[in-house]
Amino acid sequence: MSLTPSVSSSVDLRRIIDPDTYFDNNLPPTNLQWAHDEVARFVKSQAPDQRIVLVTSGGTTVPLENNTVRFVDNFSAGTRGSSSAEQFLALGYAVIFLHREQSLQPFNRHYSHSTQGMLSYLQRATDGSLRIKPEWEDKMGRDLDAYQKYTAQDKLLMVSFTTLSDYLFLLREVSLLVAGLGPQVMFYLAAAVSDFFIPSHSMSEHKIQSAEGDLTLRMNQVPKFLGPLVKNWAPLCFIVSFKLETDPQLLGSKARHALKKYGHQVVIANMLNTRKWQVWLFTREEIEPATIQIDQSDLAAGHDIEQDLVKELARRHQKYIKEAQVSHA
Amino acid sequence: MSLTPSVSSSVDLRRIIDPDTYFDNNLPPTNLQWAHDEVARFVKSQAPDQRIVLVTSGGTTVPLENNTVRFVDNFSAGTRGSSSAEQFLALGYAVIFLHREQSLQPFNRHYSHSTQGMLSYLQRATDGSLRIKPEWEDKMGRDLDAYQKYTAQDKLLMVSFTTLSDYLFLLREVSLLVAGLGPQVMFYLAAAVSDFFIPSHSMSEHKIQSAEGDLTLRMNQVPKFLGPLVKNWAPLCFIVSFKLETDPQLLGSKARHALKKYGHQVVIANMLNTRKWQVWLFTREEIEPATIQIDQSDLAAGHDIEQDLVKELARRHQKYIKEAQVSHA
Repeated sequence: MSLTPSVSSSVDLRRIIDPDTYFDNNLPPTNLQWAHDEVARFVKSQAPDQRIVLVTSGGTTVPLENNTVRFVDNFSAGTRGSSSAEQFLALGYAVIFLHREQSLQPFNRHYSHSTQGMLSYLQRATDGSLRIKPEWEDKMGRDLDAYQKYTAQDKLLMVSFTTLSDYLFLLREVSLLVAGLGPQVMFYLAAAVSDFFIPSHSMSEHKIQSAEGDLTLRMNQVPKFLGPLVKNWAPLCFIVSFKLETDPQLLGSKARHALKKYGHQVVIANMLNTRKWQVWLFTREEIEPATIQIDQSDLAAGHDIEQDLVKELARRHQKYIKEAQVSHA
Repeated sequence: MSLTPSVSSSVDLRRIIDPDTYFDNNLPPTNLQWAHDEVARFVKSQAPDQRIVLVTSGGTTVPLENNTVRFVDNFSAGTRGSSSAEQFLALGYAVIFLHREQSLQPFNRHYSHSTQGMLSYLQRATDGSLRIKPEWEDKMGRDLDAYQKYTAQDKLLMVSFTTLSDYLFLLREVSLLVAGLGPQVMFYLAAAVSDFFIPSHSMSEHKIQSAEGDLTLRMNQVPKFLGPLVKNWAPLCFIVSFKLETDPQLLGSKARHALKKYGHQVVIANMLNTRKWQVWLFTREEIEPATIQIDQSDLAAGHDIEQDLVKELARRHQKYIKEAQVSHA
């Protein structure tokens, strides 16, 4: 028995399809029309100079079967995206939150993924009535107030996806709807998007049977959508993409390569194991990245790195808007 | 370019390792010792004739990388397992709930996977205090009371897993700890366990890079653990396994094949699309399966099929215990 590696990648670049072909060959999600109408309404309801950010958050799934029992998933609870959405709201942004269903959501994120579940926050009061435990009442009350305030002000719109295909259709739809607002729109692409997929037409119709030994999955590379996003869908917007790696040797070169290849504004680079207290902000103009980091003790005390990251991005976005006005004048 | 199917399975049966080899080649989960101690304590605290059920619930993941960014997941929110655990408790069972982290849990299940999140259940009262919304107070109160009652009576023990490997180590550990109680223990194996995995030693160390085109994943078949479970780990217990299919043509023959091959007591067969209102109960003794089904209108009104399924299994389990006592006498 030969010791071939179980994970291998071939070099057949002919199979990397272009983004348009992807949309021709895959079915749109059922909420696409709803999302179109809601985003159009949301954008229209904002003041003319309102800064808007599209935050993408959570991982995409890639089904292995048309009647889906199994799928490939990307690691992401949605921590970065949901925390960042809160920070953008606090800084006055209107936020379109394009997130994986069941991933963390702004304000709710502090409670929804507790291993104890919702009931652990409740107790019977002495009069027998059901109450929030006193130790949670202040924090939950503040989160509820914030959530209701931003919702009532129409500053937060939630749109959800599950599969890679859902995500890509929704990303294109939202991009085209906000593109006309130009520089005042930021894209904050924090979702963990699959790099590989199995095209719908060559997927197994039913649950893959296990009686016959090994399983070989041949997956195609997902076309890079950052290219058409930057060039065609939303060329005037301020676009921030993310690079997550586990090998530190690759991080800087991959971030710079992405900026050069796609020509967008910012790449946030981060390592899987340190991403909660250290990120690097790469731009085309600066030779060295800006480091943003917090103490692990601050993190433990409830200070998210997204507070610093989003503040810095908002500052750069403001500058970008001003420069666009000057060059337009 | 040849049109080879993207999902294919070879017939190299030599690579199906035996279960013992699996445990030799994979690392145990970090909670294994904790689980051992807790299950031993839990079992010891029960009355001598207490019926006990091990409910497994939720899907297992199979990492594609040692520094995990991507993994293959099995579809399962844990609905069947968490609902069944409640029914077993109501019928007087002590329940060990071996579940996927973040999957649905008994009593909490009605609230934890709401797309709106926890805050949607709360509101400010007229005096400004934080309250459960009146329309939820009764139901949540009943669920909290039930959860606290069973916990206080030491009738519900929660043990969690994430990966396939975690699950298999914990299943073996728990099985060996409860096996000595014999017929009074039921195994209710509702978890959706992966059929394929990538051995740790042949996994990619870092995030798989996507620059080189296609990705080919070669996965080994997971050894069938029902065999050693029935024969060696817990030979006297009442064992119920599940068969989920999407192709109706396969369901009956696969259920009967499993009973013949492993020699356990019951296979519950169900179809992905109808599993919430129809299941079939196969045994070795009966030629035709018993059909358990509910009206979809009952389901909508909050009647879970697990009420009927678990009641029927408890009845058969009772008979099994009696027969074992007779043959022992």
